[in-house]
Amino acid sequence: MALPKKPVTGMKDILPSEMEIRNYVQRAVRETYGKYGFTEIETPVVEHIENLSSNQGGENEKLIFRILKRGEKLNLSEAKDPSDLTDSGLRYDLTLPLSRYYANHMNDLPSPFKALQMGNVFRADRPQKGRFRQFMQCDIDILGDATNLAEIELILATTALLVKIGFTGFTVKISDRRFLKAMAAWSGFPEEEYDRIFIILDKMDKIGSEGVKAELTGAGFDVDKVGKYLSLFNSGNGGVQKIEELKETLGGSLPEGTAGSLSEIISCVNAAKAGDFNIVFDPTLVRGMSYYTGTIFEITIDEFGSSIAGGGRYDGMVERFTGVKTPACGFSIGFERIITMLLDRGFSVSGETERIALLVDKKIKGERLSSIMKEAAELRKSGSTVLVSKMMKNKKFQKDNLSRDGYSDIREYFE
Amino acid sequence: MALPKKPVTGMKDILPSEMEIRNYVQRAVRETYGKYGFTEIETPVVEHIENLSSNQGGENEKLIFRILKRGEKLNLSEAKDPSDLTDSGLRYDLTLPLSRYYANHMNDLPSPFKALQMGNVFRADRPQKGRFRQFMQCDIDILGDATNLAEIELILATTALLVKIGFTGFTVKISDRRFLKAMAAWSGFPEEEYDRIFIILDKMDKIGSEGVKAELTGAGFDVDKVGKYLSLFNSGNGGVQKIEELKETLGGSLPEGTAGSLSEIISCVNAAKAGDFNIVFDPTLVRGMSYYTGTIFEITIDEFGSSIAGGGRYDGMVERFTGVKTPACGFSIGFERIITMLLDRGFSVSGETERIALLVDKKIKGERLSSIMKEAAELRKSGSTVLVSKMMKNKKFQKDNLSRDGYSDIREYFE
Repeated sequence: MALPKKPVTGMKDILPSEMEIRNYVQRAVRETYGKYGFTEIETPVVEHIENLSSNQGGENEKLIFRILKRGEKLNLSEAKDPSDLTDSGLRYDLTLPLSRYYANHMNDLPSPFKALQMGNVFRADRPQKGRFRQFMQCDIDILGDATNLAEIELILATTALLVKIGFTGFTVKISDRRFLKAMAAWSGFPEEEYDRIFIILDKMDKIGSEGVKAELTGAGFDVDKVGKYLSLFNSGNGGVQKIEELKETLGGSLPEGTAGSLSEIISCVNAAKAGDFNIVFDPTLVRGMSYYTGTIFEITIDEFGSSIAGGGRYDGMVERFTGVKTPACGFSIGFERIITMLLDRGFSVSGETERIALLVDKKIKGERLSSIMKEAAELRKSGSTVLVSKMMKNKKFQKDNLSRDGYSDIREYFE
Repeated sequence: MALPKKPVTGMKDILPSEMEIRNYVQRAVRETYGKYGFTEIETPVVEHIENLSSNQGGENEKLIFRILKRGEKLNLSEAKDPSDLTDSGLRYDLTLPLSRYYANHMNDLPSPFKALQMGNVFRADRPQKGRFRQFMQCDIDILGDATNLAEIELILATTALLVKIGFTGFTVKISDRRFLKAMAAWSGFPEEEYDRIFIILDKMDKIGSEGVKAELTGAGFDVDKVGKYLSLFNSGNGGVQKIEELKETLGGSLPEGTAGSLSEIISCVNAAKAGDFNIVFDPTLVRGMSYYTGTIFEITIDEFGSSIAGGGRYDGMVERFTGVKTPACGFSIGFERIITMLLDRGFSVSGETERIALLVDKKIKGERLSSIMKEAAELRKSGSTVLVSKMMKNKKFQKDNLSRDGYSDIREYFE
């Protein structure tokens, strides 16, 4: 019986035309982030199951591809639960492995450490259009810097990258988890309900203020508190003034320095930004991951309809490995979304070298073949891309295809 | 309890200094192979277990990391064997996924198709120095070309790459599986014993002719046949004359055209080669994988003591997916070995841009910080790598580390 030709469910083969675009973006990533002093690292795609299941992955922990134990470690007859059969799995993000990595190597790394990672991650999501079970993530993180210089550098670098690969008119939304908590506290909600509230608030973009109100009251929250809560979001969103206004309103609920730091980030990004985009304070911003402890941010672009980059501060994660608190802040671009957008735009990487095809009649042998190979070598030496190929019976078909693939100079050789 | 900091057994974290070298080699790979008309593709690291277990992976099939089924597909109580628990695994090489890929996409690909792949593969080998359970492979393959132009291009491209990244004086050894079989047939060995014989012959490098003789007779093979067999390897190895000599000796045992094609490959490579290396006929060459059907080759270098590249023709593999015979030939460099050699040589990638560090006193705030970020933006725009960092208490330590990391221009900013 023939073997299966399709990739495994939910994963995809990448054709040469898409690969060219992926490589182009990866080059832009390395070049741009390199200029901001980020250095690239890599972690294995396989990670300890304890780390993957340590409540730092949110919903992703339900989507782990687990790897079967091997040899005598695998005891099938006594296994009661899948967890008895596995001690490792495929990583679902790059943030958790980075924290492990930093904990393991911090003595060999500069402080602060500016890391760039590009690598595949794996999630056993329900397969659907544009969402794959293996996909590339591209993250920058700064570890060991507690100041807002980390946020400023992350936002400047990420936006510079987006500008470099041709995006414009996007919006950086920024807030702080501490703002989010202070607003909920000021409204009188109990702390243990915050996560449920934030999940509903996160829908503001889609269902609007009335929709959020309906869902919150529908979920049993007190109407007066909900009204108080929603009044906070009603006016003047976006500017630095809104930060000051909210700071006034919230008073002691908001930790000292939160508002000032956020304003400073916005000002510095506006002063140094390298392209046409906006940065706005958005108090409705939630960002799903529970590991965020301070600033949170994301980038949206109308063309795509949802965020194309997201990140924030997660000062607690490295501590899980070392016992020592380590400030950390990261920004991740939606690599696959960006590739999809470039493909949809019909983007193509302009060929940098001349492409020459040498078609060799199949009767050509020996010395004559040697001399053609020598000619190809000379052409390559002078910088051209050279394809040497046997001449096919249907030469017209062959030449048409070569032209389509960018071979503008096609030479024929006969005996 | 603290979470584990080390990577999973047998896998490794890659530090920035090694990553720079890996990226340098990957750039050289893309540039060099690109000039030969190879286009890059990618397949998922997860592959169907049927494909991985289809007797095309040799010993590697015993080293598969299997992925546990999920949801209702996983029936733990009725599982009798590990194979009941898995339907996919991590790929152990790039050749098998390429064959699946080609079968799946051949209508969208040029013919012949020249593929470049760089990607991680996984083998649950016993961990040992320099051998990892996740490692990068880098393969080029030509599918759909039955002529020896494929071998010539593969060898020229691979040797050009090695020359480009600084290797010289290496040796390309070439033979043909059909030679190997003809020699065994001519000596009177039965076909079903060939594999056992070839495994012993493969040790010629290490144990010499006498050693091979002892092992073959020790394994029960007839002394006269062993003597006849070994007489074939006794004289004049290396040159094109040896091919002719063996052809004369073997007569009808050797398929028509085998010797001529091999001579032609050697002549063409010698005519067009781009550096200082040898290509020799080596009738003792075996290459382990059973999927090879014709030409086989490898590259050895004294510095490393074993092969740093290997490949050959495998005309039967795509047929397993399509039912249609498809000629295929590939060459794989030992990416990790090459990185190890470059690290051992103390190789470093020369920095292409000036590195400037801006150290900012922690009292600096607001407008002053904005103007420093603006200055950094200007420097980056003009091409420099710029690191903006808070000034540490131990400034001397910080500056020493920055100098070590290549920051030759360190500027300090105070309030």
